[in-house]
Parts: sequence; C-alpha cells; structure tokens
Amino acid sequence: MSLIEPRTLKGFRDYLPEVMIPRERCMELARQVFRLYGFAPIDTPALEYLEVLTGKGSEETDRQLYRFEDHGGRQVGMRFDLTVPLARFTAQHLAQLGLPFRRYHIAPVWRGENTQAGRYREFMQCDFDTIGTSSVASDIETVLVIHELLLTLGFSRFSIRINSRQILQGLLQLWGTAEQSTAVLRALDKLAKVGEAKVREELQQASLNDSQIQSVLELAALQGNDPDVLRALDRLADGQEQALAGIERLSTILNAARRCGVTAERLRIDVSIARGLDYYTGVVFETMLDDLPNIGSICSGGRYDNLAGLYTREHLPGVGASLGLDRLLAAMEQLGMLPPVRTPAPVFVAYFDAEQLTDYLQLASAVRAAGIGAELYPEPKKLGQQLKYADHRGFVVGLIAGSRELEQGIVQVKNLRHKIGTEVAWRPGDNEALLHAIRNQLQLDSHIASDS
Amino acid sequence: MSLIEPRTLKGFRDYLPEVMIPRERCMELARQVFRLYGFAPIDTPALEYLEVLTGKGSEETDRQLYRFEDHGGRQVGMRFDLTVPLARFTAQHLAQLGLPFRRYHIAPVWRGENTQAGRYREFMQCDFDTIGTSSVASDIETVLVIHELLLTLGFSRFSIRINSRQILQGLLQLWGTAEQSTAVLRALDKLAKVGEAKVREELQQASLNDSQIQSVLELAALQGNDPDVLRALDRLADGQEQALAGIERLSTILNAARRCGVTAERLRIDVSIARGLDYYTGVVFETMLDDLPNIGSICSGGRYDNLAGLYTREHLPGVGASLGLDRLLAAMEQLGMLPPVRTPAPVFVAYFDAEQLTDYLQLASAVRAAGIGAELYPEPKKLGQQLKYADHRGFVVGLIAGSRELEQGIVQVKNLRHKIGTEVAWRPGDNEALLHAIRNQLQLDSHIASDS
Repeated sequence: MSLIEPRTLKGFRDYLPEVMIPRERCMELARQVFRLYGFAPIDTPALEYLEVLTGKGSEETDRQLYRFEDHGGRQVGMRFDLTVPLARFTAQHLAQLGLPFRRYHIAPVWRGENTQAGRYREFMQCDFDTIGTSSVASDIETVLVIHELLLTLGFSRFSIRINSRQILQGLLQLWGTAEQSTAVLRALDKLAKVGEAKVREELQQASLNDSQIQSVLELAALQGNDPDVLRALDRLADGQEQALAGIERLSTILNAARRCGVTAERLRIDVSIARGLDYYTGVVFETMLDDLPNIGSICSGGRYDNLAGLYTREHLPGVGASLGLDRLLAAMEQLGMLPPVRTPAPVFVAYFDAEQLTDYLQLASAVRAAGIGAELYPEPKKLGQQLKYADHRGFVVGLIAGSRELEQGIVQVKNLRHKIGTEVAWRPGDNEALLHAIRNQLQLDSHIASDS
Repeated sequence: MSLIEPRTLKGFRDYLPEVMIPRERCMELARQVFRLYGFAPIDTPALEYLEVLTGKGSEETDRQLYRFEDHGGRQVGMRFDLTVPLARFTAQHLAQLGLPFRRYHIAPVWRGENTQAGRYREFMQCDFDTIGTSSVASDIETVLVIHELLLTLGFSRFSIRINSRQILQGLLQLWGTAEQSTAVLRALDKLAKVGEAKVREELQQASLNDSQIQSVLELAALQGNDPDVLRALDRLADGQEQALAGIERLSTILNAARRCGVTAERLRIDVSIARGLDYYTGVVFETMLDDLPNIGSICSGGRYDNLAGLYTREHLPGVGASLGLDRLLAAMEQLGMLPPVRTPAPVFVAYFDAEQLTDYLQLASAVRAAGIGAELYPEPKKLGQQLKYADHRGFVVGLIAGSRELEQGIVQVKNLRHKIGTEVAWRPGDNEALLHAIRNQLQLDSHIASDS
C-alpha cells in the first residue's frame, strides 16, 4: 500500500510538547489573572454565518476569510478574530448576560494570509473586555489586568504605553485637520522612526498648512514624565472641550494606577500610539518589552463606543485588550525564559524487572499522590537506553531501583541534570524519605537554574 | 441601517459563563491528571489536507467532513477527531518526538452530523495516548489515569468496564465464527437489553450453528466478580493460545490496578464491551457512572496495534482513551454537581462614590493580592441595583462601604447568599481583618453548600 505523506497544511503548524508546554502554561496563567479580576470565560463556534463575519473587519480580512458552503447549503466562514464573535454573542444573549459584562476568550482564529515572514494562518487569540459601561474604573482595571498579566507571566521590564483617542480627536477638531486624521496619526507614529523632515513632507502632501504641521509636530515630539506631558497636552488643547475631558480622564487613570502599585516605568503616556482601527474612541494601550522593543506590542487594546451596532440597537460601550500569545512566546524564547523540556512531569521512574512491575507502579503512584508528576518507563529495557530517553525528555529526577534494591527497600534518587544521586529507604506505603529526597532535588535544580 | 440577526450557525452553540466556567474547570483538572502521569500536551491545526482526513474513519465521517478549497486551491478539511491528526503528527515528527511518546490533546473537532437529539456539529475532544510500546504497564497506567480523572473531577460512584479484543478474537477463532464477528459482538452487547430469544434469532440469521450460538450466549451471560469471570473465560478458551494470552494479560492489569488502589467496584470485567471500531486489538475500556447508567460511557478507549500505518512503515502500537467532556458535564449538571454561578470570582466590591474610586480599587486589589478573585462594580450606582447584579452573577461575598465608612476605616463583609454580614476595620495596606473575614465567609459558604 502506498503511504500518504504526513504533512501539515501550508501556512499551518503543529505544536510539539516543547512548544505546547509553555504555551499552555501561558494560557493558564492568563486565565488565572482574568479570573482574579472577575472576567468570566466564554466560547463561541469556529464557524459563523458568513453574513456575521463579512464587512466587519477590513477588505483584507474579508479577502482572507476561510469561507465555504456547509452540508445544508449555508454560506459559512471561520472566525478571523474574537471581537466580531463577541459582538454577535453579546447582542444575541444580552438579556441573559446582564450588564456590565466582563469576559475573556482564548481561542484559535483563522486568516488565509500571506505566509511569508513567519506568519501563520491559524493563531490563538487571548482577549478580555468589559462591556456595557463607559466608566473610567474599567479603563483603570484594564491597565491593572495588563500589568498583572505581564508580571504573572514572568516579565519585570515592560512598559504599558497609554494614549487617548479622545484627546487626539479633540486636537484634530481644534486644528481643523479632522479630515486628514489618517495622515496625522501616521505622522505621530513615524516621527521617531523617520525624522521630522520626512514627516513634514508627508503632512504637506496631505494638504496641511504650516501652522497645522507645526501643531502636529509639537504633539508628536511630546515626551518626558507623565505630569509634564499632561501639562503640555493641556497647553496644546487650548480649551478644546473634548481634548480637555480626555486629558482629565487620562490623568485619573494614571493616578489611580500609581496608587494601585503600577510604577511610572511600567505605565506611561505615549502620544504616538493611536491603534490602527477606527473602532477605538477613548483610551488606547500598547505594551512593549524593554529588552525586545523590536518585537512590537505584546498586549494592545482600548476603549470603544459601540461594540455591537451591527447586531443590536442597544448601545454597548466597552474597553478591553488582547494578549499576543505567539509574540509573547517568541519573546520568552529569545529571552531564555523557556526551559527546554518535553515533559510536564519532573520525575522519571526507571523499570528493570517485569516481575516487579507492581513495585514500580506503586513507586510512581507514591510520587503522584504527593502532587508531583512522574512517568514510568513502560518496558524493562537496559538502564542506558532508559536514561537516554529521560535525558531527551528533560526529566529532572530519576528514581532507579533494580530488583535487589527493591527487595532491600532501597531506591536511588538521582538528579538527572547534575548527575548527583542519593539512596533512600522506600517500601510501598513508606514514602516519607523518598518524597523528601525528591523535593530536595527539585529545589536544588530550581536553585541552580536560577543561578545560571 | 438594518441590523444583522445575531445567531449561531445551525448545529453550533455558544458557551455562556455559567456553562463555560465548569467546562474550563473540567479541562484544567483533566490536564493536571494527564501531567501527573507524564503525558505531554500537543496541538495540531483545525485544517488538514483532505487526503489526510478522508477514508480514515468511516463512510459516515467522510460524509460529515467539513471540506472546501482554500485560497491556494488546496483541498482541505476540518478535523473530525483527534486520532487521525495524532497519527499524521506522530508519523511526521517521529524522530524528534522519540518513543515511547505520551501525549494528551484537548481540542474541538467538527462533524456535519444530523443535529437531532441534542448533538452538535462542534465538540471538544479530550484524548490521551501512550504510543510506541506494547507493554502491559501502559495498559495499567491507562486504567489508573481514567480512575484518577474520575476521582479528580469529583465522581466517586463509577465503574471502569474492561474487556479484551484479544480474548474475543481468540474465542471467535476457536468457534470458527471469525467471519461473523460483527454479529457476535452485537449479540454480546445486546443480550442484557433484548434478552436471549432475540439474540439467538439474530445469531441464526447470521448463519451460526447451534453449538456456536450456545458458546456465544455462554460468553455473553458471563458475570460476577473478576476471578470468577477469569476462570470461566479460561474454561471457554479451551487452550486457544490467543485467548489464553489475553486472559493472562487482563488478569495482570486487574491485579496491578488493585494494588494501586483501584477497588473492585470501580474496575471490573465486562464481556459485553467490544467498542465499535475495528481499530482496537487489545484491552478495551468504557466507564459508566453508577448514578446515571443511561448516559453511556464517559471515558472509553483501548489498545491498538498500529496507529499510523497510512503515513509511515514504522509499526506504532499504542493504548489510550478519550474523556467525553460534553457527556461528563451533562452528567455533572444532572447530579447537581455544578453551582449556578456566572462569575469565576467569589468577591464583589460595591462602588458608591466616584470621589473615592481609588479606595475601592485598592480594596479590590487587596483581595486579589491574597489570590481571591474580586470584581469591582464599575459605576457608583444605587446599592440595590449593584446587589441585584451581584445576585445575578452569583458572587459569594460582597464588600460594602460608603464614603463615611471608608473615612472611618470600616468595610462591611457580607455573605450574599445567606444575607449575613460583619463589619471589619480596613484601610489601604491594613488588610488582615478584611481577608480574615472574607476567608471565613467563603468557608462558611462551602460548608453550607456541602451540607445541603
């Protein structure tokens, strides 16, 4: 019989244990943080009616949509983000959900994009939102969640950059440049990268006059500590009502976050941030890693005015953000934060003698009963072969006992990474010395790992 | 603008928080158990090349397959189970994975089936397998994992039913009924339900002679404790080699599982179990809940000879099982094991005075810093409205303090379910009395809940 070539579809990838273990751990830590702040999990189908999905993102997302006819002749599509499904979901279940509604949603999405430059057609999104309130309290809590997510995931050097579409809109009104907002926002984003001359040129091409260009450049160049930037914004706003309201709100958010323990290094105003989507109307966020600025924002979001206007006449303001899981894992790998293990269990139990299988099973059971993961090698092969396997997987501790040792009530507890071992007394039911030695080795390993 | 009707695609469903919270909890507990036994997580794409998926299950799964042409003109399909992707995955990455390989995979699959009788076209599968070994140790550990899964998920009254395709194959050989195996296996399954007369009739229609029918009925009627059943099987086997080997192996599994703490009530031989697929060649399992026998098996699986013969010439025996997550959750609901909550956080913080927002934020932060989930109501609305909201969500404890109480350093800690409260001293940073009172209320609640 001829074989089928085992291969993943172009643009898609498998996750092997060494990648899936940290990926799953990140998702679990994110869930813990979301729950701590009262966000509830939801899930929606991978497939939606095509009319629910098309025309909601951009022309690009429409083109990238995986779409087909299902068994009942319905036009369907695979979701390309979690925001459109959230809008449909919230409109559909509003009465049962009640407002305000806080949800998180961690699930794969699909886009038939160009696969160059390490982009994949299936990726995990990790979103959290507070819907049904315009309160500044929710803006602040969104900042606190991002802050806690990063800390919980093991990052200490990061900065949440915050800005306000409300201030930008107000200034655009004030300057009479509302029509050219796209060019202005692009200028804000590009000043640091391409320099003043290039930005000035682009703004001229967008038909801004000299005074307008001067104002935009003044805004784009704003930096320094938050009180200084707020004061400078206040001057720029020149009494424009919307801008002033935005400045006051931003100030409230910053002050409250400080009082809740978010340092000035980890949260600061960045006037260059506008976020691509027209969707945002209030505060907007991006999050940069100090050690990997080029990797881009790993958690972005903001406040929007109306989540689900396409599906319901109910006005649903909200605020939320999305954790970039793939980017985050790439960063963790680059920063050496991922241990190279292929097993979620730290303990390996070698197996020598089929006659004493029950002893080995009980040995493994004793470790597991203490909440420590253990794998029993399934066949009584040579020790060298078993240890080679254990090494490939990346176990920390090996439990080694031949039939004679088992009869004598002895087990060797060996640190497989540092090749040091100790013998302990063990018989089924008498597990104290064994567990003590294992815990010692696991601690020793984490000490040595954090020293290096 | 006319609205789009917000609706889920026919055959699909949304998961609201009250359903998603326990669903996510079950998946997390399952992952914990898998990891404890050294199973590693993997993930594979939702979409595969069509040739990988077709002709692997049955005519039915082929018909139910969601298939289409992707943007590059490739014929693709959505996975209908996790076994075919596992086979493709293992064949593709064999060198990197190494053997034996233990993996779990929790992910959605799609089948365009008839949607009658509460069946859905998207459902979660939860599989674990040990690949690359024929060892009985892996059969035993599969039983131990099923046992630990059920206990961890909160079930105490269940039974894992075990049987052996090896014994069945041996007996079919011995009786000269290998050709009529489908009819024989169906007879074993149906005796208890339809009675002897009906089964006898069906076996006659399948051209079995009287002596063959007599043997099949004798096998089908076998029950009692395991040693008795094993002795009876031994007599029936009449020296047939394959059957005897199967009986010895089954006996080894049962003895070892007993020694590892699995009681006779929770694991027993059931000769009526054969599992539908031709795929299984050794031990087979089903798991029934004593209190809900009609719900069917909630964890099924078995040993197979060759996982990935379509994709590689490498012979890959294995053993595994699949936890029926949807069925399990339906059972938990029927058995009253699911608390009716719509929030993952137990504590609700009421918010009265916009002037003191920072105090409320710090109050919520203090609770979260102790690892206890807390939601702050985002707007300073009337207490009645906030408590109604808290009641709808199902919070356990409410923290209530007006501006005067905050100035005096007092917070009311109220059990929202039992309507009892206590006042404690609290100021930012001085959290001891507050946390003590919250923990007391949470304990009180779980006591009352377990009493009722």
